[in-house]
Amino acid sequence: MMTGEIEVTVRYAETDQMGIVHHSVYPIWFEAARTAFIRQVGMSYSEMEQAGVMLPLLELSCRYQRPAHYEDELVVRVEVCQLTRVRIEFSYTVCKKGESSPICIGKTLHVFVDQNFRPVNLSKYRPEIYRLIAIAAGEEEKDAASVSR
Amino acid sequence: MMTGEIEVTVRYAETDQMGIVHHSVYPIWFEAARTAFIRQVGMSYSEMEQAGVMLPLLELSCRYQRPAHYEDELVVRVEVCQLTRVRIEFSYTVCKKGESSPICIGKTLHVFVDQNFRPVNLSKYRPEIYRLIAIAAGEEEKDAASVSR
Amino acid sequence: MMTGEIEVTVRYAETDQMGIVHHSVYPIWFEAARTAFIRQVGMSYSEMEQAGVMLPLLELSCRYQRPAHYEDELVVRVEVCQLTRVRIEFSYTVCKKGESSPICIGKTLHVFVDQNFRPVNLSKYRPEIYRLIAIAAGEEEKDAASVSR
Amino acid sequence: MMTGEIEVTVRYAETDQMGIVHHSVYPIWFEAARTAFIRQVGMSYSEMEQAGVMLPLLELSCRYQRPAHYEDELVVRVEVCQLTRVRIEFSYTVCKKGESSPICIGKTLHVFVDQNFRPVNLSKYRPEIYRLIAIAAGEEEKDAASVSR
Repeated sequence: MMTGEIEVTVRYAETDQMGIVHHSVYPIWFEAARTAFIRQVGMSYSEMEQAGVMLPLLELSCRYQRPAHYEDELVVRVEVCQLTRVRIEFSYTVCKKGESSPICIGKTLHVFVDQNFRPVNLSKYRPEIYRLIAIAAGEEEKDAASVSR
Repeated sequence: MMTGEIEVTVRYAETDQMGIVHHSVYPIWFEAARTAFIRQVGMSYSEMEQAGVMLPLLELSCRYQRPAHYEDELVVRVEVCQLTRVRIEFSYTVCKKGESSPICIGKTLHVFVDQNFRPVNLSKYRPEIYRLIAIAAGEEEKDAASVSR
Repeated sequence: MMTGEIEVTVRYAETDQMGIVHHSVYPIWFEAARTAFIRQVGMSYSEMEQAGVMLPLLELSCRYQRPAHYEDELVVRVEVCQLTRVRIEFSYTVCKKGESSPICIGKTLHVFVDQNFRPVNLSKYRPEIYRLIAIAAGEEEKDAASVSR
Repeated sequence: MMTGEIEVTVRYAETDQMGIVHHSVYPIWFEAARTAFIRQVGMSYSEMEQAGVMLPLLELSCRYQRPAHYEDELVVRVEVCQLTRVRIEFSYTVCKKGESSPICIGKTLHVFVDQNFRPVNLSKYRPEIYRLIAIAAGEEEKDAASVSR
């Protein structure tokens, strides 16, 4: 299975008056990692949108283990934890650079929709995109290959 | 049990290029509703912080049922769904004004900490604040009264 | 000349670790006031976009006189300070509720563009929208009337 | 004179429904570049705050020349354009990576304040910090050296 990874340096605007990163910022970092992951899969998310596929969120969850602070250097990792023909779930960990114990973990569940926000079976609607994602998600070769039939 | 409620009009900056409200905005609205709720309980969250109590998040979850759009008028409702002497959990619904079917529901779990981010037993650390919250949370009179013993 | 006005309560997420509202938040409030102003002119900004007119920014300026804090109740006022057939400039003041001395003043200069981001002469491209704005901006009746010729 | 520089990849959350980066995001990038610049000067902005010096904004201005889009790779450059003993002004350019024509230019004017937001003469209040900044700003050796007298 492939994983994506980005580094972020905490921005001042991302802190709040508690002196820590505001909790609403983590989903934005998750998304930045997801963007990098999808690009690495072989197609940018921009191209995916131009091909008529969008991935709005159905669910989001975060567990905040320890706070992050201004100027902290962080590593955000992402992987696909579940893929069906209509949905995809990603999981995330945020660690301080050089540490392995996460300060935040999270998940996002997305539905594949077309430009009109209608849910689609991606394996039929855009089989070539589904195949790329299936490979990235570590689905069996055979399984991924069967998608285009 | 008390509930809090605020109205928000979706800001342009809260939309993304899908033409819908970005998912990271809902936790910010949850927080604005939480602020209004706490003020209505009888003590502003600012005063609570000045009294040495902060409520950082341990967990966040959102389920996005339908998208919201620019200029939509929304109602964000909050209530306490669980209270212990060390933690508090709030639940939220976001509806379009005049509608009862939520477009988003969510929960946030918080820990009571002091200025140094050390978890505290609120019923001992600041019994008067705990009592206010316990009443708002709909705890038995008796139970709430017992807090200060 | 018409003016628009909104009230905002400072959100926790809008503060930074200095304990004040982050300077990048004011332009978002300006925009919320602009939205309310345009709606009051007789056409929502959403409708304007649907009619093919967008108002991206060319310039932004802010002067921060005093800080704002979490839970502060503020009034954001907007008016048109310059209107030509291709551009519009708004000015803003942000005051604490009940006070007259602004904590922040600002301006935004916008260009009228179509869906493809091509600048347009609004008085020709959408004369009915231009007329509404011209009236709101306090242009002479005669002048505004002349627009549709 | 020293200049600072960071690279940013446009995040999805930074776009709006026009499909471009929201104008309120540029000041956040300016700040991230400023952070990097100050660290490179020899003292992180976090350390500066711990030493009791903060740099709240007095003024902000931006000129938006061309829009930026999701996933664009940008370079944000910063330099000190004016330094006095009580104020500092930075100027910024944002370019697409590999291009020299900026998509946005801006300035921020800051006042040196202590922890209680009282303006200070930095050359007296924290001469060692002032000297670092003066050198970064390209002040005459002699002039910078004279600061500590």
